[in-house]
Amino acid sequence: MKIYFAGSIRAGRGNQDAYFKIIEYLKKYGQVLTEDIGDGSLTDLREKNISDEEIYKRDLSWLKEADVFIAEISTPSLGVGYEVAKAEEWGKRILCLCRKPEDGKKISAMMKGNKNIILKEYNNLDEAFSFIDDFLKQ
Amino acid sequence: MKIYFAGSIRAGRGNQDAYFKIIEYLKKYGQVLTEDIGDGSLTDLREKNISDEEIYKRDLSWLKEADVFIAEISTPSLGVGYEVAKAEEWGKRILCLCRKPEDGKKISAMMKGNKNIILKEYNNLDEAFSFIDDFLKQ
Repeated sequence: MKIYFAGSIRAGRGNQDAYFKIIEYLKKYGQVLTEDIGDGSLTDLREKNISDEEIYKRDLSWLKEADVFIAEISTPSLGVGYEVAKAEEWGKRILCLCRKPEDGKKISAMMKGNKNIILKEYNNLDEAFSFIDDFLKQ
Repeated sequence: MKIYFAGSIRAGRGNQDAYFKIIEYLKKYGQVLTEDIGDGSLTDLREKNISDEEIYKRDLSWLKEADVFIAEISTPSLGVGYEVAKAEEWGKRILCLCRKPEDGKKISAMMKGNKNIILKEYNNLDEAFSFIDDFLKQ
């Protein structure tokens, strides 16, 4: 199974550790095309020898070939929102995982109000993993 | 002319004042379908009597009927990223305005690397208005 995992890059790396652990967990189900999202040195690595247009084209071609789309959406990100819409346009199954917000912040209505998205709020990573199990075992 | 203006709502209202001024400026060109994005009390107003699904459906139906799409993307937002992709899918002309980042933060490669988006970085609102003039007078 080919899995496209999306998480914030330039909008903030505060959840990079969670991305890394989710990606490690996803690997037992198949190939994670965007494995470098969990990489602590990703921004440097990604952008050293590659233009924005090349990143854009590469990521969309990965998304197109993916069997499923999973995003961690706790850090608001233009790129992740964009990719959710492309995944929807291309008929992918979509799981969005969000840490339960402590500050009462609400998740975008464009995500919560969209019936094509399975959106799950988690308290801890074990809970996130069990949502992933439910999603991928279908 | 019908204009769809997008800006962050739940991801942060730090630029609400800029949204308000941009919307006022846009009104000389036509009808701004999402005029309430600039409203200081928007969150309460929007969400008092309307579900996330209703917001989602209403906003997408406005986006579909719009002639052009303009977003202020300085505050990263899942909803705005999602709407950019829908605007692209539906063949709208797209202008994204971003305040020049002071902290060296980079704009998402999903925005910067996408040739269907006209992306302009501005130092002040007058500069943003002149980008709007260029875009809407075409």
